[in-house]
Amino acid sequence: MIRILKEAETNRGEIFAREDPVDSVEEPVRAILAQVKARGDEALKEYTKAFDGVELTSLEVGPGAVDEGFRSADPLLVEILYRAAERIAAFHQHQVRNSFLVNEEDGILMGQKVLPLARVGLYVPGGTAAYPSSVLMNCIPAKLAGVKEICMVTPPGKNGKIPPNILAAARICGVDRVFRVGGAQAVAALAYGTESIPKVDKIVGPGNQFVAEAKKQVFGQVGIDMVAGPSEILVIADGKCRPEIVAADLLSQAEHDPNASAVLVTDSAALAEAVQAAVEEQLPKLLRKDIARASIDRNGKIIVAQSLDTAVEIANEIAPEHLELCVEQPFDYLDKIQNAGSVFLGRNCPEALGDYFAGPNHTLPTSGTARFSSPLSVDDFVKKMQYTYYTKRALEKAQMSVSNFAKKEGLTGHARSVDIRFDPAFAEETP
Amino acid sequence: MIRILKEAETNRGEIFAREDPVDSVEEPVRAILAQVKARGDEALKEYTKAFDGVELTSLEVGPGAVDEGFRSADPLLVEILYRAAERIAAFHQHQVRNSFLVNEEDGILMGQKVLPLARVGLYVPGGTAAYPSSVLMNCIPAKLAGVKEICMVTPPGKNGKIPPNILAAARICGVDRVFRVGGAQAVAALAYGTESIPKVDKIVGPGNQFVAEAKKQVFGQVGIDMVAGPSEILVIADGKCRPEIVAADLLSQAEHDPNASAVLVTDSAALAEAVQAAVEEQLPKLLRKDIARASIDRNGKIIVAQSLDTAVEIANEIAPEHLELCVEQPFDYLDKIQNAGSVFLGRNCPEALGDYFAGPNHTLPTSGTARFSSPLSVDDFVKKMQYTYYTKRALEKAQMSVSNFAKKEGLTGHARSVDIRFDPAFAEETP
Repeated sequence: MIRILKEAETNRGEIFAREDPVDSVEEPVRAILAQVKARGDEALKEYTKAFDGVELTSLEVGPGAVDEGFRSADPLLVEILYRAAERIAAFHQHQVRNSFLVNEEDGILMGQKVLPLARVGLYVPGGTAAYPSSVLMNCIPAKLAGVKEICMVTPPGKNGKIPPNILAAARICGVDRVFRVGGAQAVAALAYGTESIPKVDKIVGPGNQFVAEAKKQVFGQVGIDMVAGPSEILVIADGKCRPEIVAADLLSQAEHDPNASAVLVTDSAALAEAVQAAVEEQLPKLLRKDIARASIDRNGKIIVAQSLDTAVEIANEIAPEHLELCVEQPFDYLDKIQNAGSVFLGRNCPEALGDYFAGPNHTLPTSGTARFSSPLSVDDFVKKMQYTYYTKRALEKAQMSVSNFAKKEGLTGHARSVDIRFDPAFAEETP
Repeated sequence: MIRILKEAETNRGEIFAREDPVDSVEEPVRAILAQVKARGDEALKEYTKAFDGVELTSLEVGPGAVDEGFRSADPLLVEILYRAAERIAAFHQHQVRNSFLVNEEDGILMGQKVLPLARVGLYVPGGTAAYPSSVLMNCIPAKLAGVKEICMVTPPGKNGKIPPNILAAARICGVDRVFRVGGAQAVAALAYGTESIPKVDKIVGPGNQFVAEAKKQVFGQVGIDMVAGPSEILVIADGKCRPEIVAADLLSQAEHDPNASAVLVTDSAALAEAVQAAVEEQLPKLLRKDIARASIDRNGKIIVAQSLDTAVEIANEIAPEHLELCVEQPFDYLDKIQNAGSVFLGRNCPEALGDYFAGPNHTLPTSGTARFSSPLSVDDFVKKMQYTYYTKRALEKAQMSVSNFAKKEGLTGHARSVDIRFDPAFAEETP
C-alpha cells in the first residue's frame, strides 16, 4: 500500500529520500568493453549468442529488411507514429539555434558556429522495453540538428529479428543504419567502432543497468546524453481532484519499473486517503500489476503538505523527472517551479500525453538532476565552435593588454607570441 | 627537439596519437570525498593542514578581506581585468537564450523555459596556476545566465591567504562568496555541502588531476562543466608564414604544462624545418622553459601535409582545443573546420589573444572531445524545463492516439490515465 507521510510530522530526510542505486555492474561491463575494443565484430557475435541466444552472421539490418519490418508493422500504430512524429518535430524545431557573429571596428570578427554532430548512435532496448516512442523522441531532435548519420542499435529477439514496430519507427523518423546488437557490447561498438559498426560521436537512448554503466564508462571517448535513473512522477493535487484520476496517474508511472517512483503531494488529508484506496483498487487491473505493486510498495509516497506553497517547495527539493500540477489555477504556480524535467499543467494533462504525443521530449533528467540538467533536445545533437579574427591594427590596440596580462600570470611565452608580431625584424612579412 | 613527420610517409595512428592519461588517482580521491561527506568542515581543515600546510579557523574569506585583496592587487592588472571583463561579457551576452512558447488550437500551450542554475561552485587552482583570467572566463557566463550565487573555492597560500590578483578578479566579475580550500576536498564540499560551504548545483573551473578526478566522481550528484585534459594547440600554416612567429605560438601552448601539446601542420617542408629551428632558438628564453621543453619533446609534432586541404582533414581528425589558421585567406577554410574548440583566423590572431582578451571563452574541449562538446558558455549555467497544458477538449482529440499508442507498448496504466478522464463516472468533476 502506498504510504502517507504528514509534512508537519515527518523529517525532511524521509520526505526527500530516494532509493539507493542498485548493485554495481562496473566490472562485468569493463570486461565487455575491453573485449569489443580488442576483437570487434567477433566479440559482438559471441556476446549476442551468450546474452540474446542468437547466432548472427551479419550485424546490420539492411534497408530491405527495415522496409519489410515497416510493412509488417501494426497499421494503426504506424498511423499514430506519423502523427506523433509530426507533433514532436513541430515542438523541437523551436530549439534549432543560429550561429552568431560579432563584427567590431578595426575589422574584428568573432562568433560562435553551431554545428551538427557528424554521427550519433541511438540505443533502443529490447524485450518489453522496446518502445517505438523512444525511437522518435531520440531521433527527431538529431535530425533537426542536422546530424548526418544516425545508427540505431537494438538487441535481436530469439528469432534474430528486430520487432517490426521498432523498424517502422526507425523508418518514419529517418534512422540511417540499424544494427541488431544490444547491451554493453552495443555501446562499446558505437564508442570504439568495429568492422561492421562505425564509431559515433555521441550515444543516446535509454537502457538497462548494463547499458547505463557502459555509457558512463565510454563517456569522454564519446559524448552521452545522460545516465538515466528510474522513472519518476510527482503529482501536486488540491482537494478538488478526483482521487481515481490521481491514482491512475501515479500508477502510469509505477508500471514502468519496480524502481520507478510515484509521489503525490497534496494539501488535503482527505484526498490523500482516497488516493491511497484508489491505488489499491486500480492496481490489480493493470497488465503490469506485479511491476506496479513493487514500485508502489517500495517507492510510492503520499505527502500531506501544509499548503500548496509548501507542496511546491517539496517538489523543488525533490526535482522530479515529471511534475503534474493538478490544481485549479496551474499557471499561478509555474514561476515557482524551479526544478523539474517536464511539467504537466492542470487536470487534463496526464503525463502519458507527454510520453507519446504532445510534442515535448520524454527523455528527461531523473534522480534530482533536474536541478542542473535538461530534457533531451536539439541542443544535445549540436556542438558550438568559437572563432576569432583580428586584423593587425586590432591586434596592435590589444597588444599591451594581452602581453601585460600574460606576464602577470607568469606566462612569458604567451606575451611573446603577441609581441613578436610587432618585432621590426618581422614587420614586413606579416601583412 | 620537435619532431617532423611527413604525412605521405607516416601512418595515421602516429599522426593522430595523443599521450595516454596519467596514473589514476581514483582511490585517494574516493577516500577524500567520503571523509568530507561524513565529517564536513573538520575534514576540510585537516586536509588543508596536510596538503596546503595551513591551519585555518574559518574557511570563508569575508567581503572585507576580498575588498582588501582587491585594493592591494596590481593596479595595471586590475585595469586590464576590467577591460577584459567588458569584452568577455559583450561576447557572451549573445549566448543568452529566451524561453519559447507554442500556442495551438483548443487551448494547447507548450514550451520550454530557460532557468538559471541556483548556485554554482567555481574552482580556481592555486600556486603558479592561479590565473585571474580563469576567474573571469568562468564567472561572467554564469552571471549572464542569472545564477543567483557563485561560490569560489581556491587553496590558500602558506600564509593562509588567497593571492590579491585572484580576489580582485573575483570582485570585478561578481563572485558572491569565497572559500579558501582547494583540491578534491573543495570539490567534495561543493558537491555535498558542509557547515561552512553550501552545496551547489554545478561545479566548473580547471584544476589538477585530483580536482579533475573528484569532479568526475561527484558528477550526477552535481553537474560539472567538463573533465579537461592537457591544453592543446594545432597551427595550420602555409609557406608564407614567418617561422619565428609560428614557433612563438607553439611555445605559448607548450609552456602551460609538460603534458600540453603543440602541433604544426603545414604544406611547406621548408617552413617545417625553419620552425623546428626557431623553436629550439626561442625555447631557452622562456621563464617556464623546463615545462615547455618537456612538452615540446614529448608531445610536439610538425606534420608536413600534402596540401592545406589535407592539413584541414588532419585537424578535423585531431579535433584540437585551439586551432590557428595562419594562412593567406583563412575564411576560405572556415566551413571545412568541423572539430575544434576555438579557431583563430589569420596571421594576426595568436591564441594568447583568446586566452585573455578577445571575448570568446578560454575553457574549451580537449582530448578530441571537440567532436561532440563545446566551449564553456552561458548554456552551461542554465537548464531547460518543458511544460505542457491541455484543455479537456484538446485531450479528447488526442485520447485515441495516446491510449492506443500506450496499449501497443503494453502500458495499460498509461492508457488508463487518459481514458479515465473520459469515464462518465468522473465527467462532471473534471472541469
